[in-house]
Amino acid sequence: MDKIQYTPIGVIRSPFKQVAGMPIQPAGAKGIAGSVEIHEMFAEGLKDLEGFSHIILIYHLHRSRGFKLHVKPFLDDQLRGVFATRAPRRPNAIGISVVRLLQVDRNILKIEDVDILEGTPLLDIKPYVPTFDEREAVRTGWLSSRADVVAGVRSDERFKSAEE
Amino acid sequence: MDKIQYTPIGVIRSPFKQVAGMPIQPAGAKGIAGSVEIHEMFAEGLKDLEGFSHIILIYHLHRSRGFKLHVKPFLDDQLRGVFATRAPRRPNAIGISVVRLLQVDRNILKIEDVDILEGTPLLDIKPYVPTFDEREAVRTGWLSSRADVVAGVRSDERFKSAEE
Repeated sequence: MDKIQYTPIGVIRSPFKQVAGMPIQPAGAKGIAGSVEIHEMFAEGLKDLEGFSHIILIYHLHRSRGFKLHVKPFLDDQLRGVFATRAPRRPNAIGISVVRLLQVDRNILKIEDVDILEGTPLLDIKPYVPTFDEREAVRTGWLSSRADVVAGVRSDERFKSAEE
Repeated sequence: MDKIQYTPIGVIRSPFKQVAGMPIQPAGAKGIAGSVEIHEMFAEGLKDLEGFSHIILIYHLHRSRGFKLHVKPFLDDQLRGVFATRAPRRPNAIGISVVRLLQVDRNILKIEDVDILEGTPLLDIKPYVPTFDEREAVRTGWLSSRADVVAGVRSDERFKSAEE
């Protein structure tokens, strides 16, 4: 299993300085403002991005330590397979969020609906395109009765360390 | 800029052995069958996944070499900022696809709508949840008149190497 190495292209700025109290999905973070600072050397890659109202941020969950294969997600009280959850403590701590893009000012993106921790290293940005990213007739397993309550749920400390 | 290191959790099996002729998005890969082989040590993490009809695969675009900040996407003939495209040659060569999950057989996932190259290293799986992943009233910039034709577009060799 060869290791794969990435270098952050920027950093995410957010009002959430700690895990506790954070919304657990953008759907629960409506209107919460943040920004993305892209490192100067990558700023040219932002050309044409402003035409998109929503973007997908792919980032490293830098405060997540270790992982378990069975986890108790925020939305449930039963153990679930980690890949059937969006829990942050994963074998590869990669997060994705669809956020609203308000403005591009050179290497700074103003964004909204931010469910991401302050200082999170950004790995990639992709334009959000319904034709590519949306599906119909979706079944959502154990989350089917719970996903809609996500707006009111806040994070707690359970994902802070693998030693809990 | 600290480097971030990931270890693949498995490998994606697909009928596409080369870049040329590949669909460029799952929307253009409807019904194309493939599978995911999860490494044994992570198989327990697949518990509860079968209840989901669609999953998000996050993977390393292992055949992509180097990047340019301005690229000509498959769907266009003008140079666009790489982050305003889904082009595979990116600063961090991370790909995401929403695919249909047909069956989980221990550590093997049978999937459909596969727009991914054979042998692609898999980094993460997340359940696809419309409440989390879909947005309304979306603007899609330069792609707005082009995204709907994606089903008929096939990849060519332009992303094979940075030396073209």
